[in-house]
Amino acid sequence: MKNKRVWVWRNMRVFDGIKTLPNKMTLIVEKGKITYLEPEPQPYLEETLKYMGDRSENIKLAGENGLITPGLIDCHTHIIYGGSRLNDFVLRSEGASYEQIAKNGGGILSTLQDTRALSEEALLEQSLPRLDALISEGATTVEIKSGYGLTLNDELKMLRVARQMEKQRSVRIITSLLAAHAVPEEYKEYADAYIDLICNEIIPAAVAENLVDMVDVFCEKIAFSPAQCEKIFKVARQHNLPIKAHAEQLSNSGGSALAAKYGALSVDHIEYLDEIGIKALKQAGTVAVLLPGAFYMLREKQRPPIELLRQYQVPIALATDANPGSSPIFIPSLIMNMACTLFGLTTQEALSGFTVNAARSLGLDKQGLGYLDIGRPADFCVWNIKQVEDLCYAIQPGRLQQRVFAGVPDNV
Amino acid sequence: MKNKRVWVWRNMRVFDGIKTLPNKMTLIVEKGKITYLEPEPQPYLEETLKYMGDRSENIKLAGENGLITPGLIDCHTHIIYGGSRLNDFVLRSEGASYEQIAKNGGGILSTLQDTRALSEEALLEQSLPRLDALISEGATTVEIKSGYGLTLNDELKMLRVARQMEKQRSVRIITSLLAAHAVPEEYKEYADAYIDLICNEIIPAAVAENLVDMVDVFCEKIAFSPAQCEKIFKVARQHNLPIKAHAEQLSNSGGSALAAKYGALSVDHIEYLDEIGIKALKQAGTVAVLLPGAFYMLREKQRPPIELLRQYQVPIALATDANPGSSPIFIPSLIMNMACTLFGLTTQEALSGFTVNAARSLGLDKQGLGYLDIGRPADFCVWNIKQVEDLCYAIQPGRLQQRVFAGVPDNV
Ligand SMILES: [Zn+2]
Ligand SMILES: [Zn+2]
Repeated sequence: MKNKRVWVWRNMRVFDGIKTLPNKMTLIVEKGKITYLEPEPQPYLEETLKYMGDRSENIKLAGENGLITPGLIDCHTHIIYGGSRLNDFVLRSEGASYEQIAKNGGGILSTLQDTRALSEEALLEQSLPRLDALISEGATTVEIKSGYGLTLNDELKMLRVARQMEKQRSVRIITSLLAAHAVPEEYKEYADAYIDLICNEIIPAAVAENLVDMVDVFCEKIAFSPAQCEKIFKVARQHNLPIKAHAEQLSNSGGSALAAKYGALSVDHIEYLDEIGIKALKQAGTVAVLLPGAFYMLREKQRPPIELLRQYQVPIALATDANPGSSPIFIPSLIMNMACTLFGLTTQEALSGFTVNAARSLGLDKQGLGYLDIGRPADFCVWNIKQVEDLCYAIQPGRLQQRVFAGVPDNV
Repeated sequence: MKNKRVWVWRNMRVFDGIKTLPNKMTLIVEKGKITYLEPEPQPYLEETLKYMGDRSENIKLAGENGLITPGLIDCHTHIIYGGSRLNDFVLRSEGASYEQIAKNGGGILSTLQDTRALSEEALLEQSLPRLDALISEGATTVEIKSGYGLTLNDELKMLRVARQMEKQRSVRIITSLLAAHAVPEEYKEYADAYIDLICNEIIPAAVAENLVDMVDVFCEKIAFSPAQCEKIFKVARQHNLPIKAHAEQLSNSGGSALAAKYGALSVDHIEYLDEIGIKALKQAGTVAVLLPGAFYMLREKQRPPIELLRQYQVPIALATDANPGSSPIFIPSLIMNMACTLFGLTTQEALSGFTVNAARSLGLDKQGLGYLDIGRPADFCVWNIKQVEDLCYAIQPGRLQQRVFAGVPDNV
């Protein structure tokens, strides 16, 4: 009955998702929520615990003298796939572009074949170590996209694997249906017919089986046009599903403004986003999700418009974009470092990008996730560091001491 | 008596430091050495073990079905220091250069103060987690430089801490005396007098206490001139100490050619090295140590002359350069990825860069380190990956299953 216990942390530094609290804190968790958060020293702690009820045998000291952050929220991943993309990595190190690799039949299409070839069980087995890697680095919530199936059965298979993962690990999984990730070979000259398949069959089937939390698209010259994406957004709206979009990664195609028009929770990548698009994000309350891992791996030159995002106060989130092709990276804190080093984000922006703003990009702010306070869910990490900015600065294994998911600590 | 055991690994893929062996292998280790390395299947394994003697109670199966590489050799680190450089990180994210930070009294001088302020015990305590991070990522040999003391006592203190680290962990430590890392404040207008102090007092004292394995210098406009470095090389030669140099990182000052003239084991950084310098390296058998972590963190644009190094067949090694200012990075495999992604190295070059060529850059090739074969020291790692190139490709925690140091496996 671990979750019936009352857990206490003493003398903790706390970064709440936006700022580091000025005092060291005592924190109490019961029934999955933070019920107490007061500065040290705590003369009334014993009385407080007594006031909570006569359950002294259930009260456990869980930790002392660490630094607490919200559990990290990786709001954009593609960690369910078959095979690997080592061969693409070699090609890229020889100078080939993402588009060239895609045109030469490598890239996403090889992952497609490898993913389709696996049973649900085999796909789960291959994918779990990737989730475990993220968990070992402090993730308590992970968004996972489909998009390497691109048939009704294979997209549903991927989403079922995502739901299975949540059952097998202490983690929250948010699923995004990304059937509009690429045009499959079979539909090479019939992309519109594939869009119809997504709208008329894949989305309804995924909804019927309760496999889908949101709908995503890849709006880009090498993928789908804004008009095609809009058809999907309309169907998502009919099913009351939130939407998001991969947009403005390689060119400015207007995908972000279109997604914002449909109330997108986030638009992701956005290296080529312009001021018109940013105004649209601001109006819609859409989060800008930056993915410096792909920028780094693809050796991109065009940095996202950070200054304009700041000027319009568009919330910025970060994610690993963990995927076999353009970002085989499973360390959230490395992504924070890349955001500071490559994009010029401040450490505070990077830290909020994996906590409070990442929650917002998944609609989880409504459940109180991504920000630590009384009454909020007890998803958090305890680190053996002195200042929270150390997560952005040093790229160093071994700093995560303890992860707490839904009020229950698991030692790592 | 763990090291009296005979350890057996079955059905292992083996990357020997240069290439992946075509067959899966059986590997036997006794008394710290590899004594047997034969392709699977192994019909004669039982007889072989019998032939080794009647010690069946001492024969243990240590592992099956993994992938073995030589233990990683991190041939250039600065992991002993006090404090942190978070503040510099913030400045850099706002656009300041390494040279600007140094000129403004931040940079290395702040680390100097923090390192001098600590006792030997406190310095050891602060530094051990950094060594532990490297070990947790597969390092079995770590080179550590002094250079944050810059007084007789503080340089010796750093080197003593390095020797202590080797006693407290299952790892080989190579020490480099880098008193010529920067001109200390006290000698601001008297750099030559500081060079005299190094030559006449610090080197002899370090030698007398058996604290120094090699001598290093920082040859750069912001540090020491070639003429000053040459004085140190001459004294090192008198003491039969191998030398190496930080050279051509920010400009071409001829430090590499000078170091090669003195038979340097390696020259390190070398972004600005020209063909004349590369010819000198080739003639002297000097290794080129590339440090992409600092290149990444400092947002440098000038890549090292990879094509010329290949053309002249200069061996290339890689290292984390783990240090608080320009490379707070403690993951060797991330450095391999950066070498491929940022410098265009092949995966084979990157892998040899942390094994066979790293050994050579420390003179450890003479002891057979960095390359796996019969009769060689049993320093190796067992990884749960299918192809060794995965280390360069994916940036993923949790792949190291087992580390074997001096013939003794420690499970991680
Ligand atoms: Zn994506
Ligand atoms: Zn260095």
